Formats: sequence, structure tokens, C-alpha cells
Amino acid sequence: MTRRIESIRLGPGPEFDLIRQFLARDKEAASRLGDAVQVGPGDDCAVVDGIALSTDLSIEGIHFRREWLQPEEIGYRAAAAALSDLAAVAARPVGILCSLACAGDDAVAIAPRVMDGLRSAADGVGAMLLGGDLARSPGPLMLDVVAVGRADSPILRSGARPGDALWVTGELGGSAAAVLAWQRGASPADAARQAFARPRPRIREALWLAERGLVHAMIDLSDGLAGDAGHLAAASGVRVVLDAAAIPVHPAAAHGPERAGLRLGLAGGEDYELCFAAAEGAVEAVADEFRAAFGLSITRVGGVEEGSGVWIRDAEGRVAPLELHGYQHFGEETV
Amino acid sequence: MTRRIESIRLGPGPEFDLIRQFLARDKEAASRLGDAVQVGPGDDCAVVDGIALSTDLSIEGIHFRREWLQPEEIGYRAAAAALSDLAAVAARPVGILCSLACAGDDAVAIAPRVMDGLRSAADGVGAMLLGGDLARSPGPLMLDVVAVGRADSPILRSGARPGDALWVTGELGGSAAAVLAWQRGASPADAARQAFARPRPRIREALWLAERGLVHAMIDLSDGLAGDAGHLAAASGVRVVLDAAAIPVHPAAAHGPERAGLRLGLAGGEDYELCFAAAEGAVEAVADEFRAAFGLSITRVGGVEEGSGVWIRDAEGRVAPLELHGYQHFGEETV
Repeated sequence: MTRRIESIRLGPGPEFDLIRQFLARDKEAASRLGDAVQVGPGDDCAVVDGIALSTDLSIEGIHFRREWLQPEEIGYRAAAAALSDLAAVAARPVGILCSLACAGDDAVAIAPRVMDGLRSAADGVGAMLLGGDLARSPGPLMLDVVAVGRADSPILRSGARPGDALWVTGELGGSAAAVLAWQRGASPADAARQAFARPRPRIREALWLAERGLVHAMIDLSDGLAGDAGHLAAASGVRVVLDAAAIPVHPAAAHGPERAGLRLGLAGGEDYELCFAAAEGAVEAVADEFRAAFGLSITRVGGVEEGSGVWIRDAEGRVAPLELHGYQHFGEETV
Repeated sequence: MTRRIESIRLGPGPEFDLIRQFLARDKEAASRLGDAVQVGPGDDCAVVDGIALSTDLSIEGIHFRREWLQPEEIGYRAAAAALSDLAAVAARPVGILCSLACAGDDAVAIAPRVMDGLRSAADGVGAMLLGGDLARSPGPLMLDVVAVGRADSPILRSGARPGDALWVTGELGGSAAAVLAWQRGASPADAARQAFARPRPRIREALWLAERGLVHAMIDLSDGLAGDAGHLAAASGVRVVLDAAAIPVHPAAAHGPERAGLRLGLAGGEDYELCFAAAEGAVEAVADEFRAAFGLSITRVGGVEEGSGVWIRDAEGRVAPLELHGYQHFGEETV
């Protein structure tokens, strides 16, 4: 077993400052632990002895509102978010565990339907519900989903090299467009609601790309392309330059002023698409085959250069630092 | 790899009815998944490809109160509870992941100290903090800890046989005695507070017993001996008869009326000691060595017979069904 403790750097943001603080003191522990730990704290998953592990919290009032979703969708979405972390490292899903905290009334009326949704997301990628915990809570409905997978050759955030191209799967901003509509008291377009309520973890797509040996670094888009490309850039020690005109904005997000759609595409978050770096020119050769295999778009959104941070190139070719960030739990919200 | 999908049965209680309902539909999934899953839903841990996994929720107002504990103790205790599940199947700890939901203010003032406590519990058993998630929540402080370990030969709840003896490590009811004192507005005795705030996951003890091939079935005492012995009895398809006079009631719980102490010892919960079944006479031969190695008592508390449920034998030798149950999240509380 190759020893491969990565020193992961996270992009900017107060939430990530806290995570950095928590994890800093674990490098010593990681080195004590030795060969079993292939990927330590900070990537999408921890990988121990070829087993990839990730946890994702879904909290009522923060990640979803009860009025927006059916209970099955609350469960499905929470599991899809955790499974998406497995896709990010190109792990093959094995199972999920779920801890569920809810009020006593919800335990009877809601929890079984939430669990049905979890199970449906797991079934969709060939994983099973391995277990979990259930507790009464005076607070909001809350799920914590742990996804477990096999990853003998995990793909990390840290492998992007200057000269690489940056690609994303699918379309971005649909999920945020739904949230925006709900927040304005409107009903989201069906496609936007679907993007929010039923995101597809891109497991098969990630494995397909990984099998072809194309991918230098990968991340899943949970915080929004601006924020997640920032994590990838920080972990790889490079800068990412996005092409504004190339961002595949979801049709449901593209209504209204052009800049508003681009903003949702860049910072919306919770799209659970893949963002990856590959050698310039390498993906073009298989892009049509990818589209045909998965019925899903794949788009070159920018390039990787020496430097740091996330930058954006406008239609006139001017490059400037991208000031948008993704959703930050303990900072100012930009969406 | 031996295929060993266990059909686990849980003891009585409304919380367990819900878990039963969630897990019933996963047997089919488990059989589809095949050889990788050694222990399916329902035991203390799931075991996949020799990796043991467990999740434990700790919720302010349910599992602890902020006034009772230092933030470090909140973290330590949550991690110890999860690690105790690894002890229950005799798994060797690798790491923990923690999801933490808290208010924005707590993220700065409390969360880093909670994480220090988590790390301290992990360090104590040679595990590391592998990662986690952090989210703002409008609700109570909440931790979900996932413990990951290696278990090539996991010990299950389901292996107890008629004729076995039932043993527990340590003393029972100390943790519940602390809660009782706080609930009455008093300060708990130091030893009781320590039992609640700093439970020791019995990892080394479990591995020691497992290495000697003594243990037929094991569970950790999180719900209280009455409830947990009920899970073991249900999973093994046997009845357990406890000897009232043999229950090692924690000195801090033994104050007051004798029956009150016994009640705490049987139903108090959160002692995180081990309860295991072994062939009659087998443990006596190593009990002194165990006590010397760990400075911890080990006590025969009853026997395993044909039948079902948990029964208790009083000082006069009369045997009756034990009506006490452990803490139930969605039912009537008995402590």
C-alpha cells in the first residue's frame, strides 16, 4: 500500500477557516497512523485502506425547508449529497449510514418516508442502507448521512497542474434557481425543482472518466463552482481561470438578467455535478462518447495556470479575480 | 470471504420498532450486495469488507445539557459513545468522522473545544480524526460521530447460546446517577460526573477478551443493561436471566434505597461497559488476569437459557420478567 497522506488546502471562507483549525492538529496523528490512511482530513472523502468515507449534514431551515420537499425527497437529497462525495474521488459506493434527529411526532409521520428516500438514492447507485442512529430532538429535522465506498485509486483535489483544462458535467445553477424562487414566494420551474430535490450523484460518470485515466484532480460541486474550484486550486497549488462565456448555466437559472444567471451558475451550489482537471485536449476526444453514454453535457469551463485563487475571463478576454464564493455556513451569504 | 448476513433482532421498544421498520426492507438489498457485507443493519456496527462502521448522535437537551459539561467533554463523550460500538464488535479503531451542527456563535466559541474533546477520545484508543462536516443550525448543538475500525472477525449480538453465562465489565448506573443529581438541581458526586462525562470505550478490554476466543456474543451498554441484554437476547433467540444480587451497581448510584440503586444499574444507560455471553466457567479462569491488566472489575451477572426476553432472579430465587427497559427516545422514559 502506497503511503499517501495528502496535505490538503481548502479555499477561502470562514467555514473553511474553522475546518482548517480542526484539522491542523491531526497531521501528526495521521503520520502516526501510517499506511492505512491514504487520504487524510480535508478532501471530499477520507480514504482508509481503500475504503472511502464521507459525511454530510442536512438540516431543516439550512439545507432545506419542509414546505419545499416531500419527506422522501429530504431523504433522497441528503443521501445524494453524501454519495456525490464518493463520486468526487471516483469511489464505488458500498453503502450509507444515516443518523436522523427529529421530533417525536415526525418519527412516526415523516421518518419512515425520509428513510425511503435515502434508500432510493442508495439503490440508484447500487449501495445499501447499512445502519444508523435515530434520536428525538427538540430542534429541526436533521439528517447526517455517511457514504462508504471502495476507492483503490482515489482521485484527489490536489492533482491539477498548470496547463490542464477544467471541465464540468451537466448544467449549473438549477438547484439555486429553485431556492431563489421559493424564497421569493414563487413556485420554481419543474426542472429547477428537480435539480434541487433529485440531484443525481455522478458516480457512474466519475468512474467512467477515472477508468480512462483522464482525470488529474476532481471535486463535486456542492458549494458552487466558484467556491469548489477555489478548493481545487488551493489543494493543487494552482490558479483556475474560468471562462464566463463557457459556464453551462442551467436553463432554469438563465431567465432574467444575463449576469444573474451566470451568478447562479458560479455560486449557486448544490448542483452535485463533477468539476475536474485533465490534460488540455484529452477530454475532447471522449466528450461525445460521454454525452452519448450518460445523456449529460460535459463542458470545458476554463484552464489551470500557475498562481493561486479563482479568476474569471470575460467576453473581452479581461481576467480578474472572481469575488463570488459559494455558500458559507458561518460567513456572509452571496446567494 | 465468508458470507455472513445476519438477521438481527432488536429488543422491545418504540424506538426499535421504528428501526426495525427502516431496516426490514434492506434484507433484499443486503443479499444483492453479496460477500462484501459481513454484518448488515441492526448490530452495533455494520461490517463491510472487514471495516466496522457505526454512527452515534449527541444532541443538546437530549443526550447532554450545556450546563452539565465542558465543551471538551461534550466532544469526548460523543466520540466515546461511537467508539464504544467498535468495542462491542471487537473492532480495532482506525478513525472517527464528526458532523457538527451549531449556531454561528458556537462555531467560534464552542466548536473548536468540542473538536479537541473528540480528538482526545480518538487519541485514547489510537484512532484519528479523519474528517467531517460543519453546518450552522437554528437548533441545538448536535454532533454525529462515525467510528471506523477494522474487524476481520466481528463479534455479534447474536451468538449467545443456552447454557452461557452473561458478564459485564465495570460498574453500572454511575452515569445515570449524575443525570439524576443534575435533574434534581444537585451536583453529582465526582465519580458519577466522571462516569457521565468521561466514559472509557472498552476497546482494549474487548480485543483482549476476543483474542482469547471466549466471547460468544457481545454488546456495549448504551441503553442500560435491561435494554441491551434484551437486544442480545432477541438477536440470539434466547432468554437472559439476570441475578439481582450480582449486578455491579456503581457506588455513586448505590446511595439511597437499595431498589433505586439496582434500578439505575439495570436501566440507567450510557455506562459504555461491555456485556457479553461466554461458556459457563470459561471467564472465571481469566477474570483475575483481566482485572489486573485493566484495573477494571468483571462480573457474572446472569445466565442464558432457552426462551426469550430478559428476566430477573431475586434474592429468594424467584424469576420474573424484567419490566424495566433502557432509555427509549420515542417511548416512555423509565429513568
